[in-house]
Amino acid sequence: MLVVPLIERKRDGGALTPEEWSALVAAYTDGRIPDYQMAALLMAVLLRGLERHELAALTDAMLASGQRLAFDSWPTPRVDKHSTGGVGDKVSLVLTPLVAACGVAVPMMSGRGLGHTGGTLDKLEAIPGFRTVLSLAEIRAQVMKIGCAMIGQTPEIAPADRRIYALRDVTGTVEAIPLIAASIMSKKLAEGLNALVLDVKRGSGAFLPALEQSLELARTMIALGEDRGCPTVALLTAMDRPLGRACGNALETEEAILALRGEGPEDLMEVTYALGVEMLLAAGVEKTSKKARHRLENALGSGLAAEKFERMIEAQGGNPGVVEDASVLAQAKEVEVYKAPRTGVVVRVEPKVIGRAVVAMGGGRLKVEDPVDPTVEALAQAIVVADKLTAKPLPLVSHRVTKSGVEELTRPDSGRTSRSPR
Amino acid sequence: MLVVPLIERKRDGGALTPEEWSALVAAYTDGRIPDYQMAALLMAVLLRGLERHELAALTDAMLASGQRLAFDSWPTPRVDKHSTGGVGDKVSLVLTPLVAACGVAVPMMSGRGLGHTGGTLDKLEAIPGFRTVLSLAEIRAQVMKIGCAMIGQTPEIAPADRRIYALRDVTGTVEAIPLIAASIMSKKLAEGLNALVLDVKRGSGAFLPALEQSLELARTMIALGEDRGCPTVALLTAMDRPLGRACGNALETEEAILALRGEGPEDLMEVTYALGVEMLLAAGVEKTSKKARHRLENALGSGLAAEKFERMIEAQGGNPGVVEDASVLAQAKEVEVYKAPRTGVVVRVEPKVIGRAVVAMGGGRLKVEDPVDPTVEALAQAIVVADKLTAKPLPLVSHRVTKSGVEELTRPDSGRTSRSPR
Repeated sequence: MLVVPLIERKRDGGALTPEEWSALVAAYTDGRIPDYQMAALLMAVLLRGLERHELAALTDAMLASGQRLAFDSWPTPRVDKHSTGGVGDKVSLVLTPLVAACGVAVPMMSGRGLGHTGGTLDKLEAIPGFRTVLSLAEIRAQVMKIGCAMIGQTPEIAPADRRIYALRDVTGTVEAIPLIAASIMSKKLAEGLNALVLDVKRGSGAFLPALEQSLELARTMIALGEDRGCPTVALLTAMDRPLGRACGNALETEEAILALRGEGPEDLMEVTYALGVEMLLAAGVEKTSKKARHRLENALGSGLAAEKFERMIEAQGGNPGVVEDASVLAQAKEVEVYKAPRTGVVVRVEPKVIGRAVVAMGGGRLKVEDPVDPTVEALAQAIVVADKLTAKPLPLVSHRVTKSGVEELTRPDSGRTSRSPR
Repeated sequence: MLVVPLIERKRDGGALTPEEWSALVAAYTDGRIPDYQMAALLMAVLLRGLERHELAALTDAMLASGQRLAFDSWPTPRVDKHSTGGVGDKVSLVLTPLVAACGVAVPMMSGRGLGHTGGTLDKLEAIPGFRTVLSLAEIRAQVMKIGCAMIGQTPEIAPADRRIYALRDVTGTVEAIPLIAASIMSKKLAEGLNALVLDVKRGSGAFLPALEQSLELARTMIALGEDRGCPTVALLTAMDRPLGRACGNALETEEAILALRGEGPEDLMEVTYALGVEMLLAAGVEKTSKKARHRLENALGSGLAAEKFERMIEAQGGNPGVVEDASVLAQAKEVEVYKAPRTGVVVRVEPKVIGRAVVAMGGGRLKVEDPVDPTVEALAQAIVVADKLTAKPLPLVSHRVTKSGVEELTRPDSGRTSRSPR
């Protein structure tokens, strides 16, 4: 196929037809279009955008490039969560067993680190033996038996997305709303879900820092999901500082385990509970936020969530002893302690700087073929200390977006305000 | 080096430092930066532009990636011509021996076909045995002996440009004023010239169809040349129809030979003479346009220019008999005659369509590694016939641009009007 005229048309602000998107995605997945042509097209898409019909066609083509999970008449509701990517964001590791412990199945398919953000798969692989590559049949069987699975994209699911995702990571084309939306939704729509909850990050460490962009991304993904029969809701959460205290793959897995044992940092727990509430409501197992929250707290406090995590690790070949003893996790070869250069107050912890430091030290990828070292840690380098607190952090969970519109959660008249720390 | 942050900065409208451009160009030339990253960066440059200091740094880095021709104290003035690329544009093949026959040396370094336009090298290689790859020492010796050489970029000259040029051709990043300017000037400034004349195409078949863009490109290249000690002047010429009658490599070479024998089509001759006049004036061998034109006409009429072409072909390993007998040129295996579907007037001949047809039939490149078939012809497919002439063609030579400003050549009060056909 003649690719250059298509690149030129997009570059000049035109639109490609659904047939052209379909042919492009198929040819790139087969290796008939070289990376350099797709890289140029992706940059043109980032700077020129996609029409709504183009985005639908691109998503459908990526979805159609692979197979789908099918649970047939299995009655347990399936709900997944997806985050747009942050620094220190280990919510998935806590939330998946927690929600499964509440009777909602979670067939979670996650990604690798992208740009300055970490990836759930890279974190899980800090657990010795943990397999993130399962076949569709294995995933299905495990979800129906245990209630959850945490896996990477299988070769069977959206292979087009996997190739495009890896290319975007190394070509500066991550921060494009339509590409982010198509990538996420092409995978999630293949999971055989009853509903989907999105965690859309905002603030300086998010791929899309501005509130308006986060809202646009949320609306774009909700429209893609709802149009394809998957009810979708999004929460906007803060990424102007890292979530929790640990950054770096093994450290974050350790912090997630602490959280499942009831010792998680407050901000991590708030975001986890807020998303968990949406998942239980979307699954229909609880009718009110209050009851859903209560059920989640019970599942955590009773140890049921931690036990679910152990069973999942065991099922996926990992050492379940990690939940009792985190020292079996991969350890950093060198540890250096940074002390505050002066007495004062921490006024800023810049997630992008920390994320880039993790990448530079080997915890992320500079090129497609680079391996990832799970032991890298970067905690203190980007922390600004001053005499007094000046900047006001973003509210932890600020907006709830559904197909009906946007609800701001932090206004004094909102019943949810009490859940958001100042 | 970390390339992604540089791509991101350019993508977001920022500027790279001279040191960053220099490091990028060096690393890409060495193969330390993959094509897909450079492709994304080039698309960002196309859509975001380059600051003046970035363009200077990029051009200097491309120039510095190789060596330069040096003629030391040789007294003969050297002037080259460069065209921004058209369809049917075989001017270089006529002009080079013609100007050399007037006592001005022409060390012409040309390119391959780019996008829908043809390349001088592809045309010359239709001559059996003709070598377009010479070493710098061979070029120097031949120019000092015969007065001209027509060659491709040697591996020694601007290797960075060669790689970037090939990548742009297949990634939809040809039509960028700073990239076009940097590519042309990095090669031309390596030729050891006393002056440079530019043929900037305008109209539907040009890479930059709009007059304002052509003027911007001319001004950009003139500034780059003058700032680096090479007096530079540009003519804007028409590319709303192919130049001459033949399109396709071997056919164009044949038409150029006819032109050197005094049987060239009028439009081709007008553009050739206009550029030749500028070259003789820039070289200082004539003081007025009228005298320069007269000298060129004499060199052609006397057969001196054709003889110079023969000597050059012979020096570069080609069969000089081609000037007497064009049948030694590569011939199309299949010839199909298109007859006008109705009686009428040719109202439009769309160069871009013809150029694309030549490419599709094998006369150009779809991917970097594709070979080129010199026998492809495309004459009649893009010709529109109607009852009467409606569209008004562009004036053949419309503007003269120097460091001092723009002179419009077709206004009634211009002394040059007589040279421009209506």
